[in-house]
Amino acid sequence: MSEAKEPGFALRCPLPAGAPAQVLLGHGSGGKLMGDLIEHLFLPAFGNQPLEERHDGAVVECGDRRIAFSTDSYVVNPLFFPGGDIGSLAVFGTVNDLAMCGARPLYLSCGFILEEGLPVETLGRVVHSMRAAARQAGVQVVTGDTKVVDRGKADELFVNTAGIGLVESATPIAPRSVRPGDAVLLSGDVGRHGMAVMAVREGLEFESPIESDSCCVAGMVRDLLDTGIHVHCLRDLTRGGLASALVEIAEATRLPIEIDESSVPVDDRVRGACEILGLDPQYVANEGRFIAFVPPDQAPAALHVMKSHRPGARASRIGDVGPRAPGIVTVRSPLGTRRVIDRLSGEQLPRIC
Amino acid sequence: MSEAKEPGFALRCPLPAGAPAQVLLGHGSGGKLMGDLIEHLFLPAFGNQPLEERHDGAVVECGDRRIAFSTDSYVVNPLFFPGGDIGSLAVFGTVNDLAMCGARPLYLSCGFILEEGLPVETLGRVVHSMRAAARQAGVQVVTGDTKVVDRGKADELFVNTAGIGLVESATPIAPRSVRPGDAVLLSGDVGRHGMAVMAVREGLEFESPIESDSCCVAGMVRDLLDTGIHVHCLRDLTRGGLASALVEIAEATRLPIEIDESSVPVDDRVRGACEILGLDPQYVANEGRFIAFVPPDQAPAALHVMKSHRPGARASRIGDVGPRAPGIVTVRSPLGTRRVIDRLSGEQLPRIC
Repeated sequence: MSEAKEPGFALRCPLPAGAPAQVLLGHGSGGKLMGDLIEHLFLPAFGNQPLEERHDGAVVECGDRRIAFSTDSYVVNPLFFPGGDIGSLAVFGTVNDLAMCGARPLYLSCGFILEEGLPVETLGRVVHSMRAAARQAGVQVVTGDTKVVDRGKADELFVNTAGIGLVESATPIAPRSVRPGDAVLLSGDVGRHGMAVMAVREGLEFESPIESDSCCVAGMVRDLLDTGIHVHCLRDLTRGGLASALVEIAEATRLPIEIDESSVPVDDRVRGACEILGLDPQYVANEGRFIAFVPPDQAPAALHVMKSHRPGARASRIGDVGPRAPGIVTVRSPLGTRRVIDRLSGEQLPRIC
Repeated sequence: MSEAKEPGFALRCPLPAGAPAQVLLGHGSGGKLMGDLIEHLFLPAFGNQPLEERHDGAVVECGDRRIAFSTDSYVVNPLFFPGGDIGSLAVFGTVNDLAMCGARPLYLSCGFILEEGLPVETLGRVVHSMRAAARQAGVQVVTGDTKVVDRGKADELFVNTAGIGLVESATPIAPRSVRPGDAVLLSGDVGRHGMAVMAVREGLEFESPIESDSCCVAGMVRDLLDTGIHVHCLRDLTRGGLASALVEIAEATRLPIEIDESSVPVDDRVRGACEILGLDPQYVANEGRFIAFVPPDQAPAALHVMKSHRPGARASRIGDVGPRAPGIVTVRSPLGTRRVIDRLSGEQLPRIC
């Protein structure tokens, strides 16, 4: 275990010159800073094929079975918001990550970190919500852990879920399966979750509150696969939103993606809240939305399946994968102009999941 | 998802009359208060066969394979202590939980919660330690997540690991397999981990520091199984220590366990530190010790295997499972007196893992 045995590996000062020496909120953003941590710290330390896929979860071999395995910690503030809470978020988030690997979600673990002094009733409400979400998603919470830290050393309640699911399809559903010409489908309107949480935090009031889109999309994915759609890649649009997900896929595949901005649905209240806060809805986190890369001739059938599920009612084809490098994302505005989009460098919405 | 549909289930006020209305440090202790949370909140909410086994991990079916699945969050303070750190602890802890299910540990997930302002170098040291520990344990960290919370809303760094492993043995290694007459084997001396952490926190000084026993025991368990020992149950001696583990097994099996106190090895410095702090070493947490329940005629062979591994050098037979109910643990002192031991009601050592 001594470092001398691993001469090529020095993590004590892992990040590129000029990188911040302290952790910033932006390191949790899904943007450039988090990319640096992954690139320069986590991948060199743990590097292995599943991790290097940089997908929402790992697909690993267990005996002769392929198992999807994923984890997320949840630190959302406030714990309860219109359309959801930290408990349902923690179940749906990990279930959706498994679904993005094309897996049938089966089992979850649950690790709580509680702040001393938290009302037990609050914990009860969160657990109740997790129970309902797990039932809805058809998964079982089979193992768990609870830690308590002293008052002031956590913020009420954090929860981690990890999940496992069974991968049944033969073709990997991952960035490397994306092909030139693939249609890019979006499962619904974007920006609700981030704006629902921010509206509560910032005290923004609307005639009716913005509700988070937090939901389980595993059923929709299952239906796509069972219908025989050759899904090449799936990605849910959590931290960093639609824009970051597209950039990640473009970079991983080294293929260009062109998006038609007018085909991306955004709720009017979400657009209004984004304008007030100076945010672009395409970068705002969602918790029940995903993009699917499918062969262009199967796009109509795939949209038909997606629209038959309530969370997919506003599904649309938003763009295409171009024929060759470079791996950039271009957005065509309603006026016909084109711009290239990139990852966020900082954190625009801390602690929304 | 409405509560009206589940008339038998009311979690809003889940705990027994007289139970604390707020979360106390003792709820994370592995003692009575945590038992109440599990009994009255988690089991009613999530109740399923693997969870009700109340083992260190769940054994679940994935296709035709049996997979062990476990999770733990780590909040130890300080992050670095003699003999280990939060990184190696997080790897070995979850690997050991999988080993306690009789599984071959394969893959880990890793979820960080970082406090804004944490030196990136500290994160680097923790990741470096996790890398070394994972290599030693023969597991891969295949998926992960990083969240950052604002300054003052966490304590430097928390980490969750979940793990999966393949169960190859046909007989379940679980409390329900314990039989009257089984020998109780202990893998080494007790109390080191808790005392190593507390000595740093309390500023206790010894000629040489107490080192945590934190280590991977999966190899030792694998060797026991490969040698053909019919291991009935395994339990690692983490929060609540040896005493709590014995009480849990006695209660789960409804069988009496009698322990010979003089056969439980305790390091002199650990005993000294326990006397200063007024603690019983049998309740102090370990991170590389376990008990094994085996048929009495196989006890010598099992001890031989355990002693051939460095962490098992001081393995010993400490007691036996009695022939019939009730499920209590009796300790025979060196003077021949007998006393019944129970779970802790509060928390004697907060944040030692």
